[in-house]
Amino acid sequence: MAKKSEEGITAKKEENFSEWFTQILQRCELTDIRYNIKGFLVHRPWAVLTMEKMYKFFEETLQKKAHNPCWFPTLIPEENLEKESSHIGGFTPSVFWVTKGGKTNFQKKIALRPTSETAFYQMFALWIRSHNDLPFKIYQRANIFRYETKATRPLLRDREFYWIEAHCVHATEKDAFNQVQEDMQTTKEVMHDIFGLPFIFFERPSWDKFPGASRTFAADALNPDGKLVQQPSTHMISQKFSKAFDVKFKDKNGKEKYAYITCYGPAISRIFASVIITHGDDKGLRFPWEIAPLQVTIIPIDKKLNKKAEELKNQIKKFATVKIDYSDKRPGEKFNHWEMKGVPVRIDLGLKDSQKKKLTIFRRDLNKKEIISEKDTTKTIQKISKEFTKNLIKQADKVFEGRIKGTKNLKEIKSAIKQGTIAQCGFCSVEKDGEKCAEVIEKHVGAEVRGTKLDEKNKNSGKCVICRKKANHIVYIAKSY
Amino acid sequence: MAKKSEEGITAKKEENFSEWFTQILQRCELTDIRYNIKGFLVHRPWAVLTMEKMYKFFEETLQKKAHNPCWFPTLIPEENLEKESSHIGGFTPSVFWVTKGGKTNFQKKIALRPTSETAFYQMFALWIRSHNDLPFKIYQRANIFRYETKATRPLLRDREFYWIEAHCVHATEKDAFNQVQEDMQTTKEVMHDIFGLPFIFFERPSWDKFPGASRTFAADALNPDGKLVQQPSTHMISQKFSKAFDVKFKDKNGKEKYAYITCYGPAISRIFASVIITHGDDKGLRFPWEIAPLQVTIIPIDKKLNKKAEELKNQIKKFATVKIDYSDKRPGEKFNHWEMKGVPVRIDLGLKDSQKKKLTIFRRDLNKKEIISEKDTTKTIQKISKEFTKNLIKQADKVFEGRIKGTKNLKEIKSAIKQGTIAQCGFCSVEKDGEKCAEVIEKHVGAEVRGTKLDEKNKNSGKCVICRKKANHIVYIAKSY
Repeated sequence: MAKKSEEGITAKKEENFSEWFTQILQRCELTDIRYNIKGFLVHRPWAVLTMEKMYKFFEETLQKKAHNPCWFPTLIPEENLEKESSHIGGFTPSVFWVTKGGKTNFQKKIALRPTSETAFYQMFALWIRSHNDLPFKIYQRANIFRYETKATRPLLRDREFYWIEAHCVHATEKDAFNQVQEDMQTTKEVMHDIFGLPFIFFERPSWDKFPGASRTFAADALNPDGKLVQQPSTHMISQKFSKAFDVKFKDKNGKEKYAYITCYGPAISRIFASVIITHGDDKGLRFPWEIAPLQVTIIPIDKKLNKKAEELKNQIKKFATVKIDYSDKRPGEKFNHWEMKGVPVRIDLGLKDSQKKKLTIFRRDLNKKEIISEKDTTKTIQKISKEFTKNLIKQADKVFEGRIKGTKNLKEIKSAIKQGTIAQCGFCSVEKDGEKCAEVIEKHVGAEVRGTKLDEKNKNSGKCVICRKKANHIVYIAKSY
Repeated sequence: MAKKSEEGITAKKEENFSEWFTQILQRCELTDIRYNIKGFLVHRPWAVLTMEKMYKFFEETLQKKAHNPCWFPTLIPEENLEKESSHIGGFTPSVFWVTKGGKTNFQKKIALRPTSETAFYQMFALWIRSHNDLPFKIYQRANIFRYETKATRPLLRDREFYWIEAHCVHATEKDAFNQVQEDMQTTKEVMHDIFGLPFIFFERPSWDKFPGASRTFAADALNPDGKLVQQPSTHMISQKFSKAFDVKFKDKNGKEKYAYITCYGPAISRIFASVIITHGDDKGLRFPWEIAPLQVTIIPIDKKLNKKAEELKNQIKKFATVKIDYSDKRPGEKFNHWEMKGVPVRIDLGLKDSQKKKLTIFRRDLNKKEIISEKDTTKTIQKISKEFTKNLIKQADKVFEGRIKGTKNLKEIKSAIKQGTIAQCGFCSVEKDGEKCAEVIEKHVGAEVRGTKLDEKNKNSGKCVICRKKANHIVYIAKSY
């Protein structure tokens, strides 16, 4: 029975991003959208092996910074969600409700967690007594649920997705803000320096804050179509919450005070989308070395080379994950397959090379082949492993840098957005009174005010691009998912 | 403000097991039952750090045996559960139902997965085409939900719990049975050899099979009160399932055949209960070295020794997890605290010892102190780390071995059960026609026929302990959770 050739990636990333992304998810066997509930995704091994590594890096970094892991129930009583009015207002429309157990109808309905503030905080009230208990830093890896009314998109907007939520309690507002800055630093250390993803941290305008937060900071990553994807966000939760849930502590003088709470939420499955989108090319996936589901493949082009392949494998497995492709595909098909699957390094073993004690190494960061002496294999791969992610970061940063454009009026914003760039401009206010100007932009350009950069917070910036009043801020405007 | 002394464990494990277990969970800060939905548990860091390690060992072992990880949706449409009649019959009474998203009432209700056969199998039907695709072995780590009508017990029977479910597809019944045997071997390698838990694998009688399985094998661990806890089970799923979900493949001759399916489910949070119960003593927890949330604590008894403590920490952290206790508790309190928390090794630094370049090492496997030369610290702890789990296993196996008692009649069974042992006896049949005799035992002794051992399957065993017909099997009888 002749085997059908594997379908490769035919769409071009820059020309038809949406189709390219769909092909990658399907043909690289990352996810399957054919599960019979709308918006719920099956995550296949090639995706999960990667996301498990991504979890590991995030969790290790959080633990190093004194966060402790915990697991909270997936179900949250409706009464918890109702305790803080802006929170319930923000989340109720997108809550899945459990109303029955066996044949029993529940008197009160129970939410599948859309996020877990209202689960954690009631326990904080029980656990925290004194300033000695603070800061109190815990997190959980969890699946969460949102009954999205917008169109779902695999990994970018699913009705169930995978994240980490870190919830911290502090004695002072200053401590809380330090935590927010630590969260931003963690995002850089993991998401940029290991996963290779460039992003900008914006403070969201007041009308776009997390429901119940006093300040919201979110990292936006960029897709080739110019749309932004919101990645980890970190929030100063208002004291309304600690009051609603009675989270208080005795200070050094024995005086009872309400605590300051922060929360931080990197969504692993959505960050995985950005890994695919940022590093992938027209051949398929490219994984940063550290999170690749497999780091090295060996392709013996003739059966006579199987023994040599095994020797190499035993040598390489000491420092990298490695597999030999013994399938009955033609060599060309195997090359395409592993390039599409994004494995960082491929070793091609051919008979002629072998006679000269040589072999070919293909590296996916530079898409280059190199013939080396067999004896240099370990040295060469170890060298590549150290350069690999750096090269991906360099390429990604370069693409990102050119994507911000200064603009002075609505027309220039429109043109910047059309070209797939982020528009930067002066803006009157990111408080309630600026929302009208943001609505003008939304209406005419279909793009949103994503917020201000922390280091540009009070920079003089001329006049508001819309109302022409004094611009108190520099803001950034883009389309988003 | 004077600190209140920590509450230690006051209940005795052998005398009042139930109270002892409750105290351990609460005072060692493992779990919290005060979450406001009945039967849903908050898992605190000391528990989660351990269970994450337990997941790691199970997942590594599964991956080594060619299982690949995946993540399936938490929600399963009711129609999937209905496809196989015995399955829906077995699980429906204990399903949580989602019936609403936002303000929208769903036309068909959706289950929170009680187990995921009916989610996996519909995808198997899409993915599997040919004998070349087999065996097909995937698993997921997941939280699952059961609306228990029996009383819940933390970690032993929660309404949400944490497990791994491995689902495999095979070409032949023989391959499927080999997989079941591999699963039993995996259970031994991880649950006994790393977690230190003795157990017996029983084939369950036909009336106690997994709903939809043709054969069920389950590992029973033993509590000090003589009750058994069902730990990992592995199942030969009947072909009714592959027919219901259309899971078939083309064999070498191009002929279409229905596949043979197996599933295996180690419940991490319940195995964690057995870790606590099996190894814990009247002082508190004892963790096997490999899964301890923290392996070494250092207690400098005087501030002058802090520098030495830091030096030791830097030396030890190269091969073990280690923390220094700088809290303001008295030394005796610190000793009790870390013994209760089950940390394998404690180093006590005292001024007198220090002058002689000595220090004290306390090991929790043998509850013994030893004074050693400072320079021998690494060597000593490495030696202990190698012996530690072996010692716990030896102690646990010894307790377990004495717990099986041969019996010849109902009276002897009753007496064996009363003494907290497992009763072994001849039994007529583990098929449907033996259920009546099992009911007699259940009625008079309140204990269950747990099944047969695979290696004793067809052993001559005299007469049935109840009906006095020919005993075709040796069975084991015990109470259970």
